[in-house]
Amino acid sequence: MTRPVPSAPVVPTHGRLRPLGLNDVQITGGFWAQRQRVNAAATLTHIGDRLESEGWLPNFDLAAAGRLPEGRRGREFADSEVYKYLEALAWEVGRSGDRALDARLRAVVARVAAAQESDGYVNTAFGRPGQEPRWAHLTWGHELYCLGHLFQAAVARHRTVPDADDGLVTLARRAADLVCETFGAGGNPGVCGHPEIETGLAELGRALDEPAYLAQSALFVDRRGHGVLGDTPWGREYFQDDTPVRQAHVLRGHAVRANYLAAGAADVATENDDTALHDALRTQWERTVARRTYLTGGQGSRHEDEAFGEDWELPGDRAYSETCAGVGSIMFSWRMLLADGDARYADLIERTLYNVVATSPAEDGTAFFYANPLHQRTPGTVPDPTETSPRASSSLRAPWFEVSCCPPNVARTLASLDAYIATASEDGIQVQQYASARVRTTVPSGAEVALDIDTRYPADGEVRIAVAADASFTLSLRVPAWAEGATLHVLTADGTAVEPARRVAAGVYARIEREFHRGDVVTLMLPVAPRVTRPDPHIDAVRGCIAIERGPEVLALESVDLVGVDHVDDVVAVAGAVPVEHDGRIWLPVARRSGHEDLWPYASVEPSASVDPGEVALIPYHSWGNRGSSTMRVWIPTV
Amino acid sequence: MTRPVPSAPVVPTHGRLRPLGLNDVQITGGFWAQRQRVNAAATLTHIGDRLESEGWLPNFDLAAAGRLPEGRRGREFADSEVYKYLEALAWEVGRSGDRALDARLRAVVARVAAAQESDGYVNTAFGRPGQEPRWAHLTWGHELYCLGHLFQAAVARHRTVPDADDGLVTLARRAADLVCETFGAGGNPGVCGHPEIETGLAELGRALDEPAYLAQSALFVDRRGHGVLGDTPWGREYFQDDTPVRQAHVLRGHAVRANYLAAGAADVATENDDTALHDALRTQWERTVARRTYLTGGQGSRHEDEAFGEDWELPGDRAYSETCAGVGSIMFSWRMLLADGDARYADLIERTLYNVVATSPAEDGTAFFYANPLHQRTPGTVPDPTETSPRASSSLRAPWFEVSCCPPNVARTLASLDAYIATASEDGIQVQQYASARVRTTVPSGAEVALDIDTRYPADGEVRIAVAADASFTLSLRVPAWAEGATLHVLTADGTAVEPARRVAAGVYARIEREFHRGDVVTLMLPVAPRVTRPDPHIDAVRGCIAIERGPEVLALESVDLVGVDHVDDVVAVAGAVPVEHDGRIWLPVARRSGHEDLWPYASVEPSASVDPGEVALIPYHSWGNRGSSTMRVWIPTV
Repeated sequence: MTRPVPSAPVVPTHGRLRPLGLNDVQITGGFWAQRQRVNAAATLTHIGDRLESEGWLPNFDLAAAGRLPEGRRGREFADSEVYKYLEALAWEVGRSGDRALDARLRAVVARVAAAQESDGYVNTAFGRPGQEPRWAHLTWGHELYCLGHLFQAAVARHRTVPDADDGLVTLARRAADLVCETFGAGGNPGVCGHPEIETGLAELGRALDEPAYLAQSALFVDRRGHGVLGDTPWGREYFQDDTPVRQAHVLRGHAVRANYLAAGAADVATENDDTALHDALRTQWERTVARRTYLTGGQGSRHEDEAFGEDWELPGDRAYSETCAGVGSIMFSWRMLLADGDARYADLIERTLYNVVATSPAEDGTAFFYANPLHQRTPGTVPDPTETSPRASSSLRAPWFEVSCCPPNVARTLASLDAYIATASEDGIQVQQYASARVRTTVPSGAEVALDIDTRYPADGEVRIAVAADASFTLSLRVPAWAEGATLHVLTADGTAVEPARRVAAGVYARIEREFHRGDVVTLMLPVAPRVTRPDPHIDAVRGCIAIERGPEVLALESVDLVGVDHVDDVVAVAGAVPVEHDGRIWLPVARRSGHEDLWPYASVEPSASVDPGEVALIPYHSWGNRGSSTMRVWIPTV
Repeated sequence: MTRPVPSAPVVPTHGRLRPLGLNDVQITGGFWAQRQRVNAAATLTHIGDRLESEGWLPNFDLAAAGRLPEGRRGREFADSEVYKYLEALAWEVGRSGDRALDARLRAVVARVAAAQESDGYVNTAFGRPGQEPRWAHLTWGHELYCLGHLFQAAVARHRTVPDADDGLVTLARRAADLVCETFGAGGNPGVCGHPEIETGLAELGRALDEPAYLAQSALFVDRRGHGVLGDTPWGREYFQDDTPVRQAHVLRGHAVRANYLAAGAADVATENDDTALHDALRTQWERTVARRTYLTGGQGSRHEDEAFGEDWELPGDRAYSETCAGVGSIMFSWRMLLADGDARYADLIERTLYNVVATSPAEDGTAFFYANPLHQRTPGTVPDPTETSPRASSSLRAPWFEVSCCPPNVARTLASLDAYIATASEDGIQVQQYASARVRTTVPSGAEVALDIDTRYPADGEVRIAVAADASFTLSLRVPAWAEGATLHVLTADGTAVEPARRVAAGVYARIEREFHRGDVVTLMLPVAPRVTRPDPHIDAVRGCIAIERGPEVLALESVDLVGVDHVDDVVAVAGAVPVEHDGRIWLPVARRSGHEDLWPYASVEPSASVDPGEVALIPYHSWGNRGSSTMRVWIPTV
């Protein structure tokens, strides 16, 4: 029996879980639906306009007209932003069928295709007279990186509108064939300084049923780690060329590169049944999550090289936590989830979605955080909307960056988010993320599952899942690790409790194996009351602090909510502080730091006590920075 | 009445204090004498050898032979290392009269002089066919920066061997004249991206009595801060071009640049009686010390741009605390001390000398720390002695760096250290730093002062000052701010107590105004018992930690001293821990961190208690990293 291929970014041929795509699941309301609306209505237009005005899309026109290199604009990897934009358009058209966006996509594809050379090569920065030769600068040139994004865009189009006939898949196929021809066994033995081709090729291979693409991806994964790329001022770990993937114990170096590579390696491990590689990736994921991940799910502590720091090096104020590293972490975790079926991967995805991906865009969808620090010491300045900002100014959200990977990366993630809500196994459905959604799919056992999920989550912890068709299957609901005390009950259409309310364990799936009937309602109650969180004492940077979380959201103290104190750094949580909800907000008992400032900030005496106890309102971290210039902190001192 | 000019790096025409030079003061034994011996015997040779083998000195030979630019080696500022080396040689010859070093100095001067062009220009990186034009790249070219160091070398030679006739002063004078001609009022309105010319020109003007040089220095100081240098990825504050010196409130941006500029501005303020400028510098010094300085005296928190961070941004593990920023801080503080006469400047100098300058060189004087972090999380690797390291690898001391400013900067500081021991005022002497030393000078009032200082400080807190000639003057002894409980007494030659032991206040000078007689002995007892130090609670990075200091030395816990625990990060100071001295070492009561590691490092529970109480030996921070690969921390958690 053939099932339709899910309209999803990642469709492994096998694994514990099978993804459900946009053809199976549609988000219908709530937190993420609102984000998707803004993404479709404002962000995609904003990105398209900027790609034009910055010249990154016109670069392809110049290429087609034979006028390059003169007039080429943007960094060497500017092509990749066009491809991520194409991918975002493809998912959005797949979601909504919007004809205007479809036309926009076709126009962009035509311009890119016109720049493709007869042998399939496409890149606006290399290979022409007056430019560096093709593949001559694999270390920093990003040619293969760009193609990886092109392939992901083609996959998105192929899986949503397979008969589009717009040339995108052909364009990608021709480029992929050239890559295999050039970099195959016995050919150019190099790899790209920025991973991405690995997962792009693997997925294109899955989508087009081309084993050669997967084989090439596996070659790239295995070549890396042997010093093939030379050194950097921050060592070879910068691009994960210090240690082969299958021998590494933790993600390291540039955080986007590290996650993209891990995602590609996970694809290879799954398709090749390469257990050793998969085990190595699981170890890396575990150690990275245990020692190198911020409370927000953010990854990468260092501004200097946009890198993971060492174990436990997680300063709030200098957190780089690049938006794209968050996207990369979701890519990696999602592939591990499909392979292993462990709820912990979906837990990290949820955390990263709410606290990194959702943090980046402004409410209106036309400005973005590149870095996502957990502590803002100095009020930022509001960037000029016409300006292009350096990549991680410690300022407020900016409309565009010299390196502008984050806006289209957020856009493609939001546009494809329906594909991350639920998965299927042999005889059931797993709800991985909670949002109001419509699920209609056939699980491998043959059961035709129809669910209507209704929830105000995360504002509210009640998730109501109405069964819309009779079917016998196992419904698994992820209970987040923080959700101690969650309960579940099942009522039939007439209100009979077939499963009375029962406590379900946190950190695993709550399972209901049943012959469901139309009208059954499964209700999961997740305890989203605000809670106090403490850091592992190895994390020096936040010792003696607490953070407040509420459901999947990390909360923050922003200076605009302070009364009687100017700066968030002058606030101390009172001993044993317990956050409470009232007046529609969350409040933390705090006091003001007393004491004067000395000429020398180190002394034998204990710091003086705090005064003026009161309470202060907290906000979701993802919403900070939307009310003008401010200071902010997630971790609040208790001493 | 004319007094001999002190053989000192800084000789203002006026100010509260007058420096004493190498002709007045000689360090005769103890901690710094040993450092000076290693500096003279090993470091200077090491630097000379490396300047040859790296090609940075041979660059001048190529220039003289008209063979540049081909074959030029090193970064654009490589000339400056030769000049700092020259300065170090000049001070060392001034101290010791060593004929071999004198010959070496003359040979180097001859090679540099041969490369000077007919109009006085000298730089191996600019101005020739095939090179960029002179002064075309003031922002990053470092031409004026290099000349500033040349001028300081010439001052050193001029003040130690005025009749040397080796050409160094002439060389400097011709270059300085060209600078004034080129950059004077109505000329090129630029400034150098890296300050240093300001203090170099000012001092050369003082030494050669050339007011034009001081005027040019003042022009450079005032031009800066108006965006004359363009922008950087880290803003214009990187090179202090964001705000004019006289309007700034704190040091900011690149920490070496900031301190060098402040030193030059202090020279200008003093010579021009520019009270407004001097007040601005005092404010900057105070705020920088209060909020942007490490316990070690180190400055500059950020690796990314080698910069001061924001207020209170002082992470131990990512402390950049560049050795050269420490040298620059001493330059700035010393000029403020001479102008204001406040002990606090000498306090910071002492702290920085013992904990930054003394930390950089290895025991054998041929390897150096470039950065001086207060926390080493991962054991470093011992660099290959033949290698040239990136500038701030978080590894152990390295023999040489691609940017190798630190070795010659340490060398010139140690070679001139005798000039930082004591100062004179109208009617007395101030002992600023404690070392066994011989002091012979005439104070402005006419008193001929002869003192023999004998001490094992900082190993021991007793400083014994024997008066070697009858004279009426005021002896002022700096009592460091940490030295609560210091006592002072004066005995005559026959043992009569003319001043019985009395407590003296910390943080100011203890004064004895007296008709001293030969044989009088003044004894200062500084309480150097180890003490507990706590950070200002605004410093997030070390909240909940204590540090142990002993006298002027900051102590550290190094993993090679641990028993039963592998890593310094698994050690906790027990509640109320008091360090004790026994068996010739300092011990801190500690316990081992218990508890297991979780997959997710954030939880609602309090961290578990520590176990296995015991004690661990601490070492002076400056001596860490001399016993192979290790982890280390200065701030030790109490929770």
